[in-house]
Amino acid sequence: MWLVVLALVVLLLVYRWHRQSRILENLSDKYVFITGCDTGFGNSLAKQLDKRGMKVLASCLTEKGAENLKKETSSRLQTTILDISDSKNVSSVAEWVSHVVGDKGLWGLVNNAGIPGQLVPLGWLKKNDFLKVLDVNLLGMVDVTLSLLPLVIKAKGRIVNVSSVIGRLPVIPGGYALAKFGVEAFSDTLRREVNDFGVKVSIVEPGAFNTNIQSFLTVIKKNTEDKFHLLPAETKNIYGEQYLKK
Amino acid sequence: MWLVVLALVVLLLVYRWHRQSRILENLSDKYVFITGCDTGFGNSLAKQLDKRGMKVLASCLTEKGAENLKKETSSRLQTTILDISDSKNVSSVAEWVSHVVGDKGLWGLVNNAGIPGQLVPLGWLKKNDFLKVLDVNLLGMVDVTLSLLPLVIKAKGRIVNVSSVIGRLPVIPGGYALAKFGVEAFSDTLRREVNDFGVKVSIVEPGAFNTNIQSFLTVIKKNTEDKFHLLPAETKNIYGEQYLKK
Repeated sequence: MWLVVLALVVLLLVYRWHRQSRILENLSDKYVFITGCDTGFGNSLAKQLDKRGMKVLASCLTEKGAENLKKETSSRLQTTILDISDSKNVSSVAEWVSHVVGDKGLWGLVNNAGIPGQLVPLGWLKKNDFLKVLDVNLLGMVDVTLSLLPLVIKAKGRIVNVSSVIGRLPVIPGGYALAKFGVEAFSDTLRREVNDFGVKVSIVEPGAFNTNIQSFLTVIKKNTEDKFHLLPAETKNIYGEQYLKK
Repeated sequence: MWLVVLALVVLLLVYRWHRQSRILENLSDKYVFITGCDTGFGNSLAKQLDKRGMKVLASCLTEKGAENLKKETSSRLQTTILDISDSKNVSSVAEWVSHVVGDKGLWGLVNNAGIPGQLVPLGWLKKNDFLKVLDVNLLGMVDVTLSLLPLVIKAKGRIVNVSSVIGRLPVIPGGYALAKFGVEAFSDTLRREVNDFGVKVSIVEPGAFNTNIQSFLTVIKKNTEDKFHLLPAETKNIYGEQYLKK
């Protein structure tokens, strides 16, 4: 009896050792496309993967972001300018990626780009404010993913979508949570769909990290104060001055 | 000791009896606005609340839907035509509601209208397909809610958003789950926001109900078959004919 238990424990340890030993090889063969590399997570990730020898294709929203990243990385890393909410921009960048990676396909896609949107009470916003944040954080991610999916499938690669803890707990005001909840649904649906093609889909759900984006609390406070004074009288009356002090 | 337990049990029973006895009074005083009353849940709810004496304002997508509903209900029930994805339509209907309810405010808002969207694999869709289903199921609901919110606050009323079991488990293809996840985030954020104003927000998460909308499975099968033959060659090759037989 004890021998059986011992054998099982040994088998388990061997399995775990085996699993942990399967560290990825030939990193220098692999292309990774990352969105939102101007600052924050995207920027850090681009630099780290570049250091480890990967072929990083880093998309930035601004020329300045791309230039700064170039200065801090090797000549392997290539940048492109991308506003993920602009369909034409997305499809031209997808063509560029296809051209660069060629028959190798795209081994990694990291959907990191995003905006906080207006972090003020819902009752202060209009439909268009929600559309704006959805258009970047959700529809932009969908657009980039679907445009690059054939290349990821070609490489039997992986997709990493940056969601947020707000993708599970909508504890901030504004449209951000709606978009991040959508990211969770999109990622989970995609995960099951492309599993058959050898493609893995993961999500990352950061909490409050000190990236270059201002902390949510600061943004919320500032947005709320700025916006309050622009509200129509009816909304101002309903929420009241004391709402700002909460 | 046993006396304390007995006392607690009695207290609990009294509390439950009290809670259950708080059935809503003066139903005939109260206005309820319901979207999507052409068929399905919206239609049934409009008829039921009308029967119970409430003042039902039923919005339908089509003239025909409104006419049919009128035939089956009392003269108390009023209909209006509303495509919730059309901002101008939403704001003119909100004005109409404001005019009808007057100082009483809107005691109930039921956001029921929705569309299934294209229920096919994500890799077969474009950004616009997702935008379409989000524009009705999520942004349309947001628009209607924000436009009527001051009237609901006036009546210290309640908002009921029809989400779906798909709002928690994204087990169908297409953009429907993205929208319903967003509905969950929107409703939960709103719930906390308007609680201070005496407004309650609830969600309903139906599973597979036999409403007039065809069952999801049938729609998914049909959509998938129809759409497959229209796919570009590259996508067709990736997914393959056998995908239809899964």
